[in-house]
Amino acid sequence: MEERRENGPMMTDGLIPSPTNPMVNPLLTDLYQYTMAYAYWKAGKHNERAVFDLFFRRSPFGGEYTVFAGLEECIRFIANFKFTAEDIDFLRGALPGGCEEGFLDYLRQVDCSEVEVYAIPEGSVVFPKVPLIRVEGPVAVAQLLETTLVNLVNYASLVATNAARHRRVAGNSKTLLEFGLRRAQGPDGGISASRYCYMGGFDATSNVAAGRLFGIPLKGTHSHAFVSSFMVRKDFYCCPTVIMHHMIWCHARTASLTSPDMQSPDEIVEKLLRSADASTTCEDFVSLVQSWLRKIQRTRLSIGGFGETNLSELAAFTSYALAFPDNFLALVDTYDVLRSGIPNFCAVALALRDLGYTAIGIRLDSGDLAYLSGEARKFFQAIEKDFGVPGFGKTSITASNDLNEETLDHLNKQGHEIDAFGIGTYLVTCYSQPALGCVFKLVEINNQPRMKLSEDVSKVSIPCKKQCYRLYGKEGYALVDLMIGENEAAPKVGERILCRHPFNESKRAYVVPQRVEELLKCFWRGSTDKSREELLPLTDVRARCMMQLEQMRPDHMRRLNPTPYKVSVSAKLYDFIHFLWLNEAPNLQDLKFWTSDGNQQKRTTSSDSQRSFLIEL
Amino acid sequence: MEERRENGPMMTDGLIPSPTNPMVNPLLTDLYQYTMAYAYWKAGKHNERAVFDLFFRRSPFGGEYTVFAGLEECIRFIANFKFTAEDIDFLRGALPGGCEEGFLDYLRQVDCSEVEVYAIPEGSVVFPKVPLIRVEGPVAVAQLLETTLVNLVNYASLVATNAARHRRVAGNSKTLLEFGLRRAQGPDGGISASRYCYMGGFDATSNVAAGRLFGIPLKGTHSHAFVSSFMVRKDFYCCPTVIMHHMIWCHARTASLTSPDMQSPDEIVEKLLRSADASTTCEDFVSLVQSWLRKIQRTRLSIGGFGETNLSELAAFTSYALAFPDNFLALVDTYDVLRSGIPNFCAVALALRDLGYTAIGIRLDSGDLAYLSGEARKFFQAIEKDFGVPGFGKTSITASNDLNEETLDHLNKQGHEIDAFGIGTYLVTCYSQPALGCVFKLVEINNQPRMKLSEDVSKVSIPCKKQCYRLYGKEGYALVDLMIGENEAAPKVGERILCRHPFNESKRAYVVPQRVEELLKCFWRGSTDKSREELLPLTDVRARCMMQLEQMRPDHMRRLNPTPYKVSVSAKLYDFIHFLWLNEAPNLQDLKFWTSDGNQQKRTTSSDSQRSFLIEL
Repeated sequence: MEERRENGPMMTDGLIPSPTNPMVNPLLTDLYQYTMAYAYWKAGKHNERAVFDLFFRRSPFGGEYTVFAGLEECIRFIANFKFTAEDIDFLRGALPGGCEEGFLDYLRQVDCSEVEVYAIPEGSVVFPKVPLIRVEGPVAVAQLLETTLVNLVNYASLVATNAARHRRVAGNSKTLLEFGLRRAQGPDGGISASRYCYMGGFDATSNVAAGRLFGIPLKGTHSHAFVSSFMVRKDFYCCPTVIMHHMIWCHARTASLTSPDMQSPDEIVEKLLRSADASTTCEDFVSLVQSWLRKIQRTRLSIGGFGETNLSELAAFTSYALAFPDNFLALVDTYDVLRSGIPNFCAVALALRDLGYTAIGIRLDSGDLAYLSGEARKFFQAIEKDFGVPGFGKTSITASNDLNEETLDHLNKQGHEIDAFGIGTYLVTCYSQPALGCVFKLVEINNQPRMKLSEDVSKVSIPCKKQCYRLYGKEGYALVDLMIGENEAAPKVGERILCRHPFNESKRAYVVPQRVEELLKCFWRGSTDKSREELLPLTDVRARCMMQLEQMRPDHMRRLNPTPYKVSVSAKLYDFIHFLWLNEAPNLQDLKFWTSDGNQQKRTTSSDSQRSFLIEL
Repeated sequence: MEERRENGPMMTDGLIPSPTNPMVNPLLTDLYQYTMAYAYWKAGKHNERAVFDLFFRRSPFGGEYTVFAGLEECIRFIANFKFTAEDIDFLRGALPGGCEEGFLDYLRQVDCSEVEVYAIPEGSVVFPKVPLIRVEGPVAVAQLLETTLVNLVNYASLVATNAARHRRVAGNSKTLLEFGLRRAQGPDGGISASRYCYMGGFDATSNVAAGRLFGIPLKGTHSHAFVSSFMVRKDFYCCPTVIMHHMIWCHARTASLTSPDMQSPDEIVEKLLRSADASTTCEDFVSLVQSWLRKIQRTRLSIGGFGETNLSELAAFTSYALAFPDNFLALVDTYDVLRSGIPNFCAVALALRDLGYTAIGIRLDSGDLAYLSGEARKFFQAIEKDFGVPGFGKTSITASNDLNEETLDHLNKQGHEIDAFGIGTYLVTCYSQPALGCVFKLVEINNQPRMKLSEDVSKVSIPCKKQCYRLYGKEGYALVDLMIGENEAAPKVGERILCRHPFNESKRAYVVPQRVEELLKCFWRGSTDKSREELLPLTDVRARCMMQLEQMRPDHMRRLNPTPYKVSVSAKLYDFIHFLWLNEAPNLQDLKFWTSDGNQQKRTTSSDSQRSFLIEL
């Protein structure tokens, strides 16, 4: 039974694998789902057929769109929903005051074979109030799914949206790398971030586990520590005062001052490097690098120049190039970008070029990225010209260091020469808004529509089991999302239909769609029914996302003051919502309460006459 | 081999279990740790002994303290660090341009038997710059641990600190419940939040999986959907117009209008309730509740009163009480708190009381919590008086709905009658600052101190393998944290010691400690050495955290303008830091660069004379 919890990212035999994270199981939920299930069971209500909508109320980051993500994990969870004997044992003691054994017998046979799940395909662009997932099934079972589904969708959609926003501001020509694992909210915060950032438009991740699980391209070079770990004697021990001071401090280990394990370019053990085409071998790559550095120094000094570069850094770069001659990318800001990192990089890159290798480029991780990237570009271009190295001026520049949507925007405005951005903390923690706020609301039970009321209109849920459509206009852009009742006729291409704001009486418009897309598809209809949507590979989901983002009218997508995308209901659904609202509103029978100052008053009108009045409005 | 990845929260036989989340394994890291490891290996440097410090640079949430959490998971990860054959296969293809087979042979035998880990015990109050964890070992292995350790500490410490801050503002007399799973950043964002919020001072969680994994007390009642799922015909179908309208809308399923599966209090299947002492059985608990409601209505109407309550809600509460007579806690804001929820709750609570049960209380999830809790308290007190029910006035009031540190503070200022707070989104996502920013810096290699320089002083790391102490004053409060060199003598009780700000020359003070606490303890010294600190159960770690928070001087802990806690270095370490800094700073030999406007200038002074000058400062 525990086998279902093994990690299995691939689908086999048409079976749906268990969730990627083995910690996703039926106990990953709020206790109250179990107390409610027990109360439903005690009341004989547990098998009443319920419909729940999972939706959000406002797009994140001040924007007007959201990328829907997390559906595959939801379906995996549902498809494998089953209690183990250990789960049941734990639940026996977890319910306050205990429970009857019959309830545990009931749980033992619970699965999602009676559950149907309709959802908007993962990677779609979605909007507030429209159900992303509709779960139909026995009320107790559907309720048990709530917390887990909301958890799986919330962060996934949030971070995918954040990635899409970063892509939008960076532009399609830039490479976007997700570097967030270390700052993510926990291990699978990191793994999920890598997956859903890729879905939202990133090109690669640094996260090896995510690369393995999802086939996302992996990128990475080296850190400052790698550079610092190389110590060239010439840098540090040239001065007698320095040595004396150091000896006083490290008195217990002066032996190490003369020990042979200090590195210098001369001491790099393996200096051999075979050429890219394997035709020749350079016996002393270190000397080749040093000779290039001297050439660069002579030439560049004449045009403004730099002094001596840091030789520890040069040793680190040389070592790294010996390990990755085909993929040499150096972090150039450990000591000084312009006077050490870039000349050192160029020396190594030119030495590699002598052997037929093309260096990838540099990474900047501090300082004024616009300025430094511009200076680096000029340096590369001067090298191209001075030494006749075609293409060297286009050497790639990657930037990192606390980047976010806003800093990308500023860099664009300032002008920069950066080709790739490595983005971490702000991307993966969704720093500017770290929660989306999806909810899971009962919209129907026993075929009776239900709605959650609230004094705050934005929190009122739209009742009924609904059909949802996206209507497209002539230019191919999406115009409006439309929710209609289950039994209403679908909107048709070329036919005028009235779309109403669900809560604002004055907002309504006739729309003649040029294309009609049904949003909710069946992704689960019990384990035996195979007539459901396939879960597509991540690359396909990513492609859908990219395509849908392109189909949005640009004014909905801009960073500042985007135009809200319209979400509407049919005239019939509008009328029913407002009939039900009035009917369920507290103390409808006593309108005077609504104007009271909090002091309670006696009711003054009869409920029935009020009701008729309101329905006739 | 895969067994190590099984979930095993308990320690057995002195062995350290694998990480709680099976996804935490050696591949959960950045690719560059592997590219660096390969470059180290190629350069023959991989076994050079390195020391890394894990620390943060600034306490979160505008505060001056941080709770250190995540250590146990780090030690579990280190103790079980080993590559599987599948890991190796994946890595073969993951390194850019491939790697030599010898490197994979090397990785096959890598573990942490050569690694030593010193750390501040988990649950301690900690401060910027002081190493939380010091990792010593072969540079390639230590480097491979970086990302995972930072990931495991960052969010854990952030959310534990957030919990401690919520506890501080709520006060020790309130019950704090963590309700964040659905809004957490992914599944183990939720599980970690529950664990570390408990560590930081919360009392319970709603998260069943966390309850099982860590033994955290579980709390929960029911949701609005539970209440909405009960439909009493009288509420909804009393009016012919309503029925007609409803029939028009739901034309396809009018059958359900008269179907027997609609609930009303009269239709609750199981009405029997045995008394708490099992001496009697109430045959019709529903009628008992109804009779209490009528009594309350008669009495309360006379003092201002309320109209009819919502009977669907009453049915829901009654059903819930039948399931949990010993633990009746009702969510009272589905329809109207004061005119429906609270009277309905009281009717059920008083009926339960007739049978010897004491209801727990109510939960408020919307509206003005200060006002509503006050009105609820008055109602309970009136019931106590009117019906002679001792203690009823003290019925517990739980509040939830987007609470955070600031809203708790506002509630305190307004005055409220809330006994327990259920806190979710803002707590678990650390909304006001969703990342901590721990780093892992090389401080020594081959016994040579290293430091990471930066133009930003706050980003400069403190070099050397260090000893760390906390010095306490007469009142028992912590005075200062002190870092000294490895070979310096420890500070002694009653002996004056000079404590210097690590980077500000003018900030220094003599301290005469009344108590000296060594901060870094050995938590791992290879797998065979058992002389290490035990990993304590969560409740013990929580107790340490509570105790340490109490030992902090209150002005360091306040929400607004807290006094910074002092973190210092010895005079000797100060001198050495600044010697090394000057020595490693870029272009030290050319001071004029520091005042240049970005245009490069030729160096004008000799490096050696500058160096002597600076060291003599």
